[in-house]
Amino acid sequence: MTSASKADRKALLVDCDTGIDDAIALLYLLADPGVEICGITTVFGNISAATAARNTLWVLDVAGRTGQVPVAEGSELTLVGEQTHRTGDVHGGEGLGGAEVREPSGRVVGESAAELIVRTARERPGEVHLLATGPLTNLAVALRLEPKLTGLVKGVTVMGGAALAPGNITPAAEANVWHDPEAAQAVLSAPWETTLVPLDATMREVMTEDQRLSLAGSRSAVARFAADILDHYMDFYTSVFGCRCCACHDVLAAAIAVGDVVPTRAATVRVAVDTSPGPARGATICDLRGQYKGKAKQRGATCTVVLQTAGGFPETVVQRLLRT
Amino acid sequence: MTSASKADRKALLVDCDTGIDDAIALLYLLADPGVEICGITTVFGNISAATAARNTLWVLDVAGRTGQVPVAEGSELTLVGEQTHRTGDVHGGEGLGGAEVREPSGRVVGESAAELIVRTARERPGEVHLLATGPLTNLAVALRLEPKLTGLVKGVTVMGGAALAPGNITPAAEANVWHDPEAAQAVLSAPWETTLVPLDATMREVMTEDQRLSLAGSRSAVARFAADILDHYMDFYTSVFGCRCCACHDVLAAAIAVGDVVPTRAATVRVAVDTSPGPARGATICDLRGQYKGKAKQRGATCTVVLQTAGGFPETVVQRLLRT
Repeated sequence: MTSASKADRKALLVDCDTGIDDAIALLYLLADPGVEICGITTVFGNISAATAARNTLWVLDVAGRTGQVPVAEGSELTLVGEQTHRTGDVHGGEGLGGAEVREPSGRVVGESAAELIVRTARERPGEVHLLATGPLTNLAVALRLEPKLTGLVKGVTVMGGAALAPGNITPAAEANVWHDPEAAQAVLSAPWETTLVPLDATMREVMTEDQRLSLAGSRSAVARFAADILDHYMDFYTSVFGCRCCACHDVLAAAIAVGDVVPTRAATVRVAVDTSPGPARGATICDLRGQYKGKAKQRGATCTVVLQTAGGFPETVVQRLLRT
Repeated sequence: MTSASKADRKALLVDCDTGIDDAIALLYLLADPGVEICGITTVFGNISAATAARNTLWVLDVAGRTGQVPVAEGSELTLVGEQTHRTGDVHGGEGLGGAEVREPSGRVVGESAAELIVRTARERPGEVHLLATGPLTNLAVALRLEPKLTGLVKGVTVMGGAALAPGNITPAAEANVWHDPEAAQAVLSAPWETTLVPLDATMREVMTEDQRLSLAGSRSAVARFAADILDHYMDFYTSVFGCRCCACHDVLAAAIAVGDVVPTRAATVRVAVDTSPGPARGATICDLRGQYKGKAKQRGATCTVVLQTAGGFPETVVQRLLRT
């Protein structure tokens, strides 16, 4: 891999609830010399924000990047102050599928997640892209902290929601959005360009057990760690797909954020998050009524919903991790 | 067409808000000697229940069946007593696209829609299939009138909802369900076998302007009437599909109810109707999370959601109407 000059590097702030696929996304991004991760902030979701921060620091250790990226802890509660259920069965009790996670070498910074996001965006206006792979609480708090944030960041990519696909945590809702619908509504209705990477796309980019085994057999410690945590993930996803494999949610969003993957089908449409107490709570209602005439762009819409990618992306992930 | 013996005929009660595609469904069914329509009940929706009754009587006149099928007027208000908006632009102000509708020869019966449904089901237990192509208010009222109705009818087929497809009247909701979500919830959660024919299926069975023109050029007065009312429908649907054509909502449900069309993809799953005041009000939330492993049947589920049919059905409709 050629190293990119500093000016060419894509600056990314990653907000995540470091469970298994967040970890894969981080390892994927950390392995790209063309990407500068200028901060990682954590949020409750797969696990607590504190555990997510510890897991993130451990991922940095595994990647040999200890101390090189600031990690800030964020919200443990939703925007409106509630504690929502964790999905411990999907990612394992500690979020990394029961893989060995030792006490990390690094420490979190003193700032909160929202503070780190706002400060970084102010220091580098127009340069930094936000990637969110967990509930959107930290981003919503950052928007309250600095309403001008929408004009300070280069763009926002969110793994979350389900447009025409079924939900996962409920029949209608995807887990990241369901965990904090009010925060998701705040983020997706804010006047900035967002790219939503929902289950419609991520459930079609499926890593197989064979691909995981190729990681497991590698000499790369990073690849073996990935195989180790994906082992648990595939245990869970066997109940979803009927065979040992897994979706690549967060790493697909990461690849779209940095331009590695260009959606083959996407629509820029109005998106409303259901914040009612009804059965659709947490649903991302994308106005795709224009699909029958192929009209993508709706006036006033700022959210691009990724509906499909070309497929084959998991192999790209595997190959990159094998080269680490 | 061969005539069927009375015993072989499929007995059908049709509940509808006779706009354009309801009328096409009625003409399609009336042209089948194997189908016995033992009653038609009307409901508000596309237009008022009273106008729907008048339109229904006119359709019977056009089909040369005046006085042969009892027509009963039903609800003008939702189950909870509200008046909802009409979709006058879709079906034209009087519901039949501005086609000439003279004073019909027949008259409505003295019973209400719900009374006719309940009485017929009691008189012929296990024999009659219910087909609903409008809001589900009359069926919900009938269930309140006679809770044993669920065991008295042979089955229920409903044109309505959107499973994985976008809605039509809102981004999340299909018009029939949206007009009375509380009634839809009552009907779809009642312990009877229902088949839901949502936009997922109906928006893929599209009649073309060429097909309509073949009806318009026919010597059959029924076919020409169909072409006449479909003219307005295609005006509306041009804004949806980007060309002159139209979906075949209600007639597809009719064909599925009598077994003319067998779905190529369907799933028997739990369906919840969103009755909240949120942005998903009127959405039919079908639990299709099992789709990735091809598992159709959910324990306890009684609603079969039609997701796809083979295509080409509009030509069947055209050929039948041309033969009338």
